[in-house]
Amino acid sequence: MCHDLAAALDIGGTKIAGALVDSSGRLLVRARRATPAGRDGAAVMGAVAEVLRELTAARGWARVAAVGIGSAGPVDASAGTVSPVNIPGWRDFPLVDQVRAVVGGLPVVLVGDGVAMTAAEHWQGAARGHRDALCMVVSTGVGGGLVLGGRLHPGPTGNAGHIGHLSVDLDGDPCPCGGRGCVERIASGPHIAARALAAGWRPGPDGDTSAAAVAGSARAGDPIAVASFDRAGQALAAGIAATASLVEIDIAVIGGGVAGAGELLLAPLRRHLKTYAALSFARDVAVAPARLGADAGLIGAAAAAAGARGLWAVGG
Amino acid sequence: MCHDLAAALDIGGTKIAGALVDSSGRLLVRARRATPAGRDGAAVMGAVAEVLRELTAARGWARVAAVGIGSAGPVDASAGTVSPVNIPGWRDFPLVDQVRAVVGGLPVVLVGDGVAMTAAEHWQGAARGHRDALCMVVSTGVGGGLVLGGRLHPGPTGNAGHIGHLSVDLDGDPCPCGGRGCVERIASGPHIAARALAAGWRPGPDGDTSAAAVAGSARAGDPIAVASFDRAGQALAAGIAATASLVEIDIAVIGGGVAGAGELLLAPLRRHLKTYAALSFARDVAVAPARLGADAGLIGAAAAAAGARGLWAVGG
Repeated sequence: MCHDLAAALDIGGTKIAGALVDSSGRLLVRARRATPAGRDGAAVMGAVAEVLRELTAARGWARVAAVGIGSAGPVDASAGTVSPVNIPGWRDFPLVDQVRAVVGGLPVVLVGDGVAMTAAEHWQGAARGHRDALCMVVSTGVGGGLVLGGRLHPGPTGNAGHIGHLSVDLDGDPCPCGGRGCVERIASGPHIAARALAAGWRPGPDGDTSAAAVAGSARAGDPIAVASFDRAGQALAAGIAATASLVEIDIAVIGGGVAGAGELLLAPLRRHLKTYAALSFARDVAVAPARLGADAGLIGAAAAAAGARGLWAVGG
Repeated sequence: MCHDLAAALDIGGTKIAGALVDSSGRLLVRARRATPAGRDGAAVMGAVAEVLRELTAARGWARVAAVGIGSAGPVDASAGTVSPVNIPGWRDFPLVDQVRAVVGGLPVVLVGDGVAMTAAEHWQGAARGHRDALCMVVSTGVGGGLVLGGRLHPGPTGNAGHIGHLSVDLDGDPCPCGGRGCVERIASGPHIAARALAAGWRPGPDGDTSAAAVAGSARAGDPIAVASFDRAGQALAAGIAATASLVEIDIAVIGGGVAGAGELLLAPLRRHLKTYAALSFARDVAVAPARLGADAGLIGAAAAAAGARGLWAVGG
């Protein structure tokens, strides 16, 4: 029996997904539970254990060499704990130990969900073949991860690439993280919608006030809706430029629900990037939409485990 | 004869310094010329060649295994060229080839001056023993470099850690780099002084309008002078916090002339850092003054060469 599979967990505030993943990135077995985010930590862990038990009962489990976890953050990979903002029952929760107990002592690798998405895009998606990349998710929040020198760079605690909480407006609006003018505070879906509403945008007859509804208005030519996406693109551009100045990336990959707005977001982003990334070594950063969809978290968690444990090559 | 020395060059807009450096960081031989920054590229290279010839004529040259260059930026280590903002005669100047020709084919390692200073502080200074560090120079400009995972991280072109041109104020004042609200545009010495003057600060009878003079007034209690240093500290804090969010540093080391203001700059910087670096994995970043003085550029250029060529351990 060859040990050529990774088990993957993707843990968020809405759902807990699991899969067995092979060395080509195929998901062989899947399992899924809703996250009981309003309940206590033990209840949330109970849902994780149910997902894991479905996987351990599956054909193929005996081939699993390691478990990769991508979790909503912050995480602390060095301590093996997680404190996801949107799962209040978990604060410094010893997720790695608890998962290891369920899976009978297999190696367990923990990274933040932005790092997991990055591992996936580098292995199989838009960052493939790039030695230095920032990948990000723009959605209800804004997260990300880094590839440096051809390898995933999770950082000591598994949170590196956390572009959502870079301040690009030092006098800007307070952010729940404690900072001011964070990229997430300007570019996340809820803030795109709130900014449009505050500037006078009105939803259609269905009352939908999501960023997707603002995108619909922008496509129809509504200048307030267009301006709100422009501002989001500007904040993302400043964050990408900061990353390019600090670690010299050659591509920024953008996924997540808000990135679904496509050129409505990416065109102003690229335009503003010309302003903020003007230095010779930063000005050629490419911007590309993410290629992997909802499975990026699982594929990336598997890739992070495979890379950390040397199961198979994930070098992009 | 053992090949246990590095030759180092520190190239700036004012002076070109050279030295032979041993594996304990001692400068055995020194040479120095003024930079003919207003003349053509060949004249500037002539001054570099004079410095090198003093070194090659010295006892000890036969022990040199490699040459390290720390140059004002931007540099392009992958192409071996430099385009220092303050040396207009050098644009994409093939410095590595030209130096190699003078030194008879020895290996030549090029990094930016901020990266060189970082190598020095990690090897022998305030970042020693730290696995993940940002080191920066706050002076006429603001530059820096990164240590990641215990190793210098120059990036593909040798410019990584370029914190001076991170935008922390996306709607802020235009910067000569083409961006807006860059850290350097707020925190450099000339901008500390200009901001104080614009707010009504007046120099003493000697007419000194330098940042050092503003620091003197601040120490005497002038609220405008204090506020200008506070603003510089705020911009540096936002930049350090951004770095911590992106790559998880545990220390920020601050050198350069403006850092000579000491707690006048560092106290507000640490206070603002609490605001901007609020996430669990970022909030424990230490801030420390640089320990190496004017020789940091030479020591760091030697360290970068030694590290890249495996001459001796520079791991801090």
